Parts: sequence; structure tokens; C-alpha cells
Amino acid sequence: MYTHGGDIYKYADITDFSSNVSPLGIPDRVKQAMRDAVDASSVYPDPYCRKLTRELSKAYDIPAGRVLCGAGACDLIYRLVLSQRPGKGVVFAPAFGEYEKALCMAGAEVKNVFPRSIDFEWDEKAPELIDEETDMVFFCNPQNPTGMLTGEAVIRALADKCRSVGALLVMDECFLDFVDPVSAFSAAALLDEYENLVVLKAYTKLFALAGVRLGFMLAGSSALCEAAGDVLCPWSVSVIAQAAGLACLSETEYVRKVREFVEKERSFLAEGLSPLAEKLYMGRAPFLFFKHREGLSDELIKHGILIRDCSDFAGLAPGCYRAAVKSREDNVRLIGAMQDLA
Amino acid sequence: MYTHGGDIYKYADITDFSSNVSPLGIPDRVKQAMRDAVDASSVYPDPYCRKLTRELSKAYDIPAGRVLCGAGACDLIYRLVLSQRPGKGVVFAPAFGEYEKALCMAGAEVKNVFPRSIDFEWDEKAPELIDEETDMVFFCNPQNPTGMLTGEAVIRALADKCRSVGALLVMDECFLDFVDPVSAFSAAALLDEYENLVVLKAYTKLFALAGVRLGFMLAGSSALCEAAGDVLCPWSVSVIAQAAGLACLSETEYVRKVREFVEKERSFLAEGLSPLAEKLYMGRAPFLFFKHREGLSDELIKHGILIRDCSDFAGLAPGCYRAAVKSREDNVRLIGAMQDLA
Repeated sequence: MYTHGGDIYKYADITDFSSNVSPLGIPDRVKQAMRDAVDASSVYPDPYCRKLTRELSKAYDIPAGRVLCGAGACDLIYRLVLSQRPGKGVVFAPAFGEYEKALCMAGAEVKNVFPRSIDFEWDEKAPELIDEETDMVFFCNPQNPTGMLTGEAVIRALADKCRSVGALLVMDECFLDFVDPVSAFSAAALLDEYENLVVLKAYTKLFALAGVRLGFMLAGSSALCEAAGDVLCPWSVSVIAQAAGLACLSETEYVRKVREFVEKERSFLAEGLSPLAEKLYMGRAPFLFFKHREGLSDELIKHGILIRDCSDFAGLAPGCYRAAVKSREDNVRLIGAMQDLA
Repeated sequence: MYTHGGDIYKYADITDFSSNVSPLGIPDRVKQAMRDAVDASSVYPDPYCRKLTRELSKAYDIPAGRVLCGAGACDLIYRLVLSQRPGKGVVFAPAFGEYEKALCMAGAEVKNVFPRSIDFEWDEKAPELIDEETDMVFFCNPQNPTGMLTGEAVIRALADKCRSVGALLVMDECFLDFVDPVSAFSAAALLDEYENLVVLKAYTKLFALAGVRLGFMLAGSSALCEAAGDVLCPWSVSVIAQAAGLACLSETEYVRKVREFVEKERSFLAEGLSPLAEKLYMGRAPFLFFKHREGLSDELIKHGILIRDCSDFAGLAPGCYRAAVKSREDNVRLIGAMQDLA
């Protein structure tokens, strides 16, 4: 059963606020690199993504053996779980459903843990939720669907606790590259200190490559990459995805622009939605999380708008929603539709 | 560790006979469909590949619920194994290494079984190799790397035996679409009779979409597709792969041409290699299998030619090789290089 946003194919004509990709779309030069890679697609992709891995290794100043590319972060989640075979996994919830699905599939016991704060913020007590039996921990920063950002002190405390109980900490930073400055929040800075740390990044979101499938992981130890690369198919990253990834690496101006754009439009959208929502959470992600009446998402579908009904996230009750930050025109439409339904 | 052909990225300049894709390359209209799909790649792919599944269902005259698309046949092998969790798997060997790797990964005991015939042909005794404990059987037709084709009577006997012991029979027909007429050999004709049957097809080979990752399975029961679709990531088939697949479905003239081409060039290549090889096996696949001295593949690399050293296939000794059927020009080059090394 499909339990995510973005299934626009069910509807004849819909504006999709249910998945969260860069509102600026795929950069033009990346599109061109993809078109140019069509001719090279008759052969198998490089199973080791050698060029892309080498360039990512330079960009993140980490040995190439500690970088692994995958068909989106989701592919890497399954690879990590299937290669590490955790007996018990802890998910900092609410969270992307594939963490729990992957853990269960690999036979792990799963504990979803929730923040004490009613604003979904994690504090210095968070590490206490990781017990001695824990083998793997999933933590998304900023969190999905709440958008809440967690600072370095808490992340470091989580990495310490994981190390002390012998657990792997998987920090999912799929939405972090929209935040400025990334460096103030990214666990990538801790990778030389913690062998038990993995940071997941997705070009799926930042460069709107959702349809292409490309993500990568940076790891505290090369053994984690080797093991995760060895399970499942050897050719998960297509020729076009590898070409797209290489082209993305020179798109520094695009990244600056998309951050600025998301920052501005999130404020605009929040201002519009805040008086209409029961409660709105002002996170730092390229989406907004809010509470409203039950059934709102179905009503919006009739207005040609798809938002993410979050009632199927562990720990969330009906009436919780997530809406992507999109173009000004789209954001105005969402606000307008919600005013009509008020 | 990578144990397949096609890793051309290790070499500066190499002619690749180690992987087996259509020597005619990606059809032009399919390439155009891929370029056209770049703009649509900023959104998530349809997780159910609805359009492509519907068209495949029409093309194979099978209900859409019994069709499942994946990122190449390899993705579907993992999905089948992870969803069915066989306790014991039987692999008709020598065979594609991912069957055994997938079975082991899912915790299954694996038995490789070998033909009695020194020509690697399977006969009516083949089903006896499937014992009562067997839960899943992998059989490739024509077989890889030997190229040997198995007829309907043996396939039916295998399906019967599998049914009687409660095993799933996975027929990998990735190379069968190069054979004319497919209908005389395809297990697809048995799908309405055997609920315990799955047929794997790959556009990777037939339409040279190796770099794109696209395959599909046709199943005797929709429950098999549902279960296999539910494990692993929901978006394994990219937007471009789905568009490519749809475009492939109208390429009937291309399929006729590639069959004719492979038939002719296989004869030409076999004629050239036969006097040079210790023994050559005249299969029906888009590749040839032969025995030669140990170390031949390393010698050929120095001539800029990559063939598949098959010594890592279960049951094959050093000195076994597989070479793809390619263009006349390439085939002449391989024959020439082997003459030089004779």
C-alpha cells in the first residue's frame, strides 16, 4: 500500500502540495546533462558510480570509500537496514514511513519515540529514548512532516548515546540543504569523529530530481558503504541519474537561489495559512505542517489541490497536514482554496 | 564485490563483449521519448507505473494486477525473494549470480543444480532436481551464460513439479525475446494454468535499456505482484524508464530487426570463433559461450576487448567465456584479436 505524498497520477488535473521538491524545478544545465546522457544509456551504469562518488568526496571532503550513491535516499535506507540487520530500531517520530517499513522488512523490532514538546522540538533529553538494545536509529533533520530543525548539541548527544550502546545513527538530511547555513546543522561535520554515523542526502528534493531517483550517503566508516553497496542490485543508479548528479555539483548559484526562494515563500505561505489553520508549525523545511479539521485534504482535492494528510504517520492524529512550499502562484492558490473552505 | 560483465568504466577505451544488450542500441523513438520525459522528471514517478502496466497487460493479454514493473529484472528478483522469504531455493546453474545472492540475502538455503548433459541442455529429468523442501526455483531460458534453450515440455514439467512441492517457479526470460518465435518457448503461455509461476522480462537487453533500468514480471497470481511491489522502495522505476517502456511497446519492427540481426551475426561470430575455441556452444541467445585457455580474457583486455570470464559462475571451471553478439565490425574485431592470440 502506497503511503506517501506525490501520487499525482491518480488525478486528472491536480496541483501537488503533497510532495516536497525544489519549487524551482530541475536546473536547466542538469536537464541538458540528462538529455545528453540518453545516448550513453544503452550500456550498464557504472555500478560504483566512480565519477560521481569522486566528485562528492571532494565536495564533502571525505574519502571516496565513505560515499555511497543510491536510487534516492529511500534505496539507501533499505540497503543500510538489509546490510546491518538491526535487531532493534528506534525511529524519532513522526517520520518518513519507509524507516519503519524497512526495519520491519529486515526483521527488526521497531520503537517509535516522540518528543515531549508539543511543538515537536527535540531537546537534550532525546538521547534517553535510545535504550541499550538499540542497533539502529533513524533521525530526520529537519523532521518530516513537522519541519522542526534540531541543533548540533542534540545531534552530538544522539551520536554519543548511539556509540555508547553500539547503535548506528542514520541522520536523514534530505531536507537540510534547503536551510542556510547547512553547516550549522549538518551531522556531516561529525563523520570523522563517529564511525557509527551515516548522513543521508537526496538530490531528489534539492534539485527536484524526484523522478530520476538519486541520493547518496556519507558514512563514518567505509565498511558501512561497502556492506550497503553489496546488498540488492548492483546497478541501482541509472546512467542518467549519475549524469544528473555530476551536473548538480556545479549548481551552487541554484542552491543559493532555491534557499532564498523557499525562505521567502515559506514565510508568505505561513502568513496566509496561519489565520486559517488551527495551529501552524513554523519549521525550516521546504514545507509547512499544520493542524486543521478532519477531511480537509479531501475537500481540497475537489479544488484541484493535493496536500499530505498526515494521519497515517505514527503518533499523529487525524487533522494533521503537510503542504509543500511552491511557487508564489501556487501558494496563492492554496491560500485561496483554504479561504474558500474556511 | 561486482561479479558481472559490463563494467566498462574500469578501462579507458574498451569494446565491451561482456554484457549482452541489443546490438542495435536504443530505438530512436525510445530515445526521443526519454528526452521528452526529462521535463516530467521533477516529480515522483508513478509508484504503480499505471500506464505502462496497463499497456503491458494488453500486450501480454494478462490482467494488469498480474504485471509488476521494476528497475530491471534484477530489482524484481530481490523483490520476489524478499516478499516470499523462501526457506530453500534451487538455482538451475550455471546462472546469473544475483539469484543466489538474493536468496542468501533473504536467509534461504541455496542449492545449485547442474545439467547431466555436457552440452548444458536440460531434459525431462530436470524436475527431479527440485526436492520437497524447495520453496523457490530460478530457471533462465535461454540459459545465461550457456545460451541453451529449453523447450515447453521441460518447462511444463518444472512448473508441475514446483506446484506439487509448493514452490514458486521464476522463469527468467531476459534473453528470450531475441528468439524467434518467442511463443514456442515462453512460459508466459502457462501463466493462466500455474499460480506458482512468474516470468521475468527485461527491456534492459531487448531494447538496450541497460543504463535506464527497466524490467517487468508477469505472474500466475496477483498476490505475487502485490507482495513484491510492497517490499523495498515505492519509486524504483524512474519517470524516464516508464516513458521509455511505453515507447518500446510500439517498436515491433525493431524487435523483428534485432532478432534477424542477432541470428545472422551469431552465426557469423560462431563461424569465426569455432575454429579458435576449444569448444563453442551454439545456443540461441544474443551471446556465445565457449571454452578456451585460462587467462584469455586478460589477454584480450590488452587488445581493448572485454569478454566475460565465466570462472566465477557456480559449476564452471576457469577457461569458460561468454561473448556478446555485436555489430559486424565489432565481431570482426573480436575474431581478429583471437586469431592474433591463437
